[in-house]
Amino acid sequence: MQPREMTMVDLATAIAQREISPREVVESSLECIEALEPQVGAFATVTADHARAQAVAAEKDIVAGRYRGPLHGIPIAIKDLINTAGIPTTSSSQVRAGYVPEDDAAVIRSLNSAGAVMVGKAHTHEFAFGATTPTTRNPWDLSRIPGGSSGGTAAAIAYGAVHAGLGSDTGGSIRIPAALCGTVGLKPTYGLVPRTGVTSLSWSLDHVGPLTRNVADAAFIMNAIATYDGGDPASVRRPSEDYARLLSSGIEGMRIGVPTNWFTDYVDAEVASATSAGIEVLLSLGAEIVEVEIPMTKHLTAMEWAIMMPEASAYHRKAMRSCPELFTEETRQLLEVGETILATDYVDALRMRQLFKAAWMDMMSDCDVLVAPSTFAPAVPAENPVYEFPDGRVEAATPGYVRLSLPMNLTGLPSLQIPCGLNASGLPLGLQIMGKPFSEASLLGVGAAYEAATENVGLIAPLGSLAAA
Amino acid sequence: MQPREMTMVDLATAIAQREISPREVVESSLECIEALEPQVGAFATVTADHARAQAVAAEKDIVAGRYRGPLHGIPIAIKDLINTAGIPTTSSSQVRAGYVPEDDAAVIRSLNSAGAVMVGKAHTHEFAFGATTPTTRNPWDLSRIPGGSSGGTAAAIAYGAVHAGLGSDTGGSIRIPAALCGTVGLKPTYGLVPRTGVTSLSWSLDHVGPLTRNVADAAFIMNAIATYDGGDPASVRRPSEDYARLLSSGIEGMRIGVPTNWFTDYVDAEVASATSAGIEVLLSLGAEIVEVEIPMTKHLTAMEWAIMMPEASAYHRKAMRSCPELFTEETRQLLEVGETILATDYVDALRMRQLFKAAWMDMMSDCDVLVAPSTFAPAVPAENPVYEFPDGRVEAATPGYVRLSLPMNLTGLPSLQIPCGLNASGLPLGLQIMGKPFSEASLLGVGAAYEAATENVGLIAPLGSLAAA
Repeated sequence: MQPREMTMVDLATAIAQREISPREVVESSLECIEALEPQVGAFATVTADHARAQAVAAEKDIVAGRYRGPLHGIPIAIKDLINTAGIPTTSSSQVRAGYVPEDDAAVIRSLNSAGAVMVGKAHTHEFAFGATTPTTRNPWDLSRIPGGSSGGTAAAIAYGAVHAGLGSDTGGSIRIPAALCGTVGLKPTYGLVPRTGVTSLSWSLDHVGPLTRNVADAAFIMNAIATYDGGDPASVRRPSEDYARLLSSGIEGMRIGVPTNWFTDYVDAEVASATSAGIEVLLSLGAEIVEVEIPMTKHLTAMEWAIMMPEASAYHRKAMRSCPELFTEETRQLLEVGETILATDYVDALRMRQLFKAAWMDMMSDCDVLVAPSTFAPAVPAENPVYEFPDGRVEAATPGYVRLSLPMNLTGLPSLQIPCGLNASGLPLGLQIMGKPFSEASLLGVGAAYEAATENVGLIAPLGSLAAA
Repeated sequence: MQPREMTMVDLATAIAQREISPREVVESSLECIEALEPQVGAFATVTADHARAQAVAAEKDIVAGRYRGPLHGIPIAIKDLINTAGIPTTSSSQVRAGYVPEDDAAVIRSLNSAGAVMVGKAHTHEFAFGATTPTTRNPWDLSRIPGGSSGGTAAAIAYGAVHAGLGSDTGGSIRIPAALCGTVGLKPTYGLVPRTGVTSLSWSLDHVGPLTRNVADAAFIMNAIATYDGGDPASVRRPSEDYARLLSSGIEGMRIGVPTNWFTDYVDAEVASATSAGIEVLLSLGAEIVEVEIPMTKHLTAMEWAIMMPEASAYHRKAMRSCPELFTEETRQLLEVGETILATDYVDALRMRQLFKAAWMDMMSDCDVLVAPSTFAPAVPAENPVYEFPDGRVEAATPGYVRLSLPMNLTGLPSLQIPCGLNASGLPLGLQIMGKPFSEASLLGVGAAYEAATENVGLIAPLGSLAAA
């Protein structure tokens, strides 16, 4: 078995015991990228030299007895929205062509300290402003989108190039590609993971978090990146915790809220039945089900966009004046619309968000977590990224995918996407587990219990096996 | 000596020892109001029956051995922006004529628990959107404005009707009238005093706080009103503290920052010399002086207005659609301008505020407090509310007064206004003492040390003595 095909935990154990060298691991990853990258296009930049140097350093450390933990020597992919010192960071935009940051983002400093090996900068939908990632294809079906905006990271994990990676999530940009590519994705509580050195889409909705093959790996990444950093005004100071501590605790007696609206409206039939099956699994593990009604649903989409668009337009204002032609037409149009939104509408959306947060917490008062689909549908075709319902209603990819993930950007509450099997066409489907403030360890515990019961874990897309050939 | 002429501490002692009844105290206050109110116009509503009932209840409590502390039986005035159950709360606007709230604001519940006696609802500049309070005259010179927007509260204290009161401060609306009427005024740290039940001008800049005759009294009001309340999303949970604990500590060795810009630009000559004299007093008490440069001064006024105006326009949007004719022309015009501001400009102002807060904290790293004038000039004439500099420059009252107070609304940091004497025309001048987050007790300690050294304390305007005649 190639190192890249092992689970991260098994690989980490082998690295710690010096059965496998980080140098072999990184070569396995780079070979895979060389073989499959031309078909998938997950990476904006493959950082082979950088990765090899990190692997050499990791090997030296480990040989010298300085093993740093479960990320040491593990290949990862980093969304190209996240600054990496001395390495191009393009946000998948011509606007940032040639931009080489001087400093690492706070999360990169954390991952470097943990000894992770970055093999590449993964594509994002341009400046994270969309859910399709047009540069990249879905390893499960190369005619389809990987989702977005962290589509490159999800695709790189799905075809087996890396074990884990980082994404960012403003309306679902971690959870959507994770769901569509069959990986785990965690959007942490707002402020828990610092955004210093990460290009902003919408400061009050942006989150950084891990994408991984399985739930335990997400816990290990969180252990590294959940830190305070003064460079992010929203960063919170909290005692450090072990996000893996509840992975084996089970969910006996846990109260699981199941929404009867919003997450059930206009959802693909196979997505709906996979969600029901997932809830059955949780019931069989001893959880109790509580039906809940999502509040203020008429306003959710308007709130998300009324906040996101002007924040994005304010951020990109200078570039829109100096080089508007370098944006893709799609992004430029969105930024132009954002420039026309009135401050009073934005202020109203902010005030409504306060009410929504309070109503959501009220709804959650009787349950521990919520379970619902991560996306309304699996991956749609890249050539015509829309979904057609049996009743003829056609929904465009980005607004459609964002529908079920945006509530947790508005509330700032943590949300974990886990794979819950494949549909009849072999496309991954995802389950979303949503929690209370700073309850990441508990969400990961639910995810781990589900994984253990179903073996919906660690899947590499069939394409990934070609690399070994 | 009439009860209303005693210091609050002396009066509280007499009440506690049952030498004076709260019923005598309230009659002294109501007599004063009856005599002088026609000339000053401090009150939107005099709540004589309510006050007498509260005084009776206070007397009963005290006779029964249930003395509640230094506010028990003390007459106070409440800015008419603050909801009082069953009592008209007009925000000094025809828009709110006939509005009688069902519930008390959180701060009113706190003052009721402390046993304070509310004798009236004091005028505000309409909806707090201005610094002149046109309904009200300055007790020190009836041809002049009292400042605003908490002008009624300041005037009521200055002519001796009450010992203390509440105001609100979005750009200086506690500190400005306190300075112009010769009272103490404290704008607490953002979030320390809950705004539940207080009509909003600009949610991210609004603060509620005390106006009093002297510094100790402000500490006692703070002890009552600095509470957490879930109805205000900005309210912070903190351990309770005694804001009077540093009143006798002195300022030996304290490092006092003195700005060399912004607070020195276009300032009335007598204001500037009173500030210098105040700093000399603090030096003589053992403080050290550190010169500091205020950062980002080019952007301060734009930031304040770009945040305040759209927040105000969003709040009043419904009324501006249903009954625009009920606003004064001045307020309606400001709200109309606020409706035209773009969200991107507002977002930029919010982002710049984050940078300003960080730069301000950086500037403060080498000192404990800053000392500067509270306002650029004393009270201007009511008929033509402008100030003319010797060089011919003419400045309108509201933008002029707000200039020196708005930095502490943008930063959210605490700021204490204390009287520092009279100018040659007998008009009060004020000193502003600005601190670090939640350092109210320390600011009050500086103010108390200054008071003790100068006897600039407890002044009732000469007009106040007429009530006794």
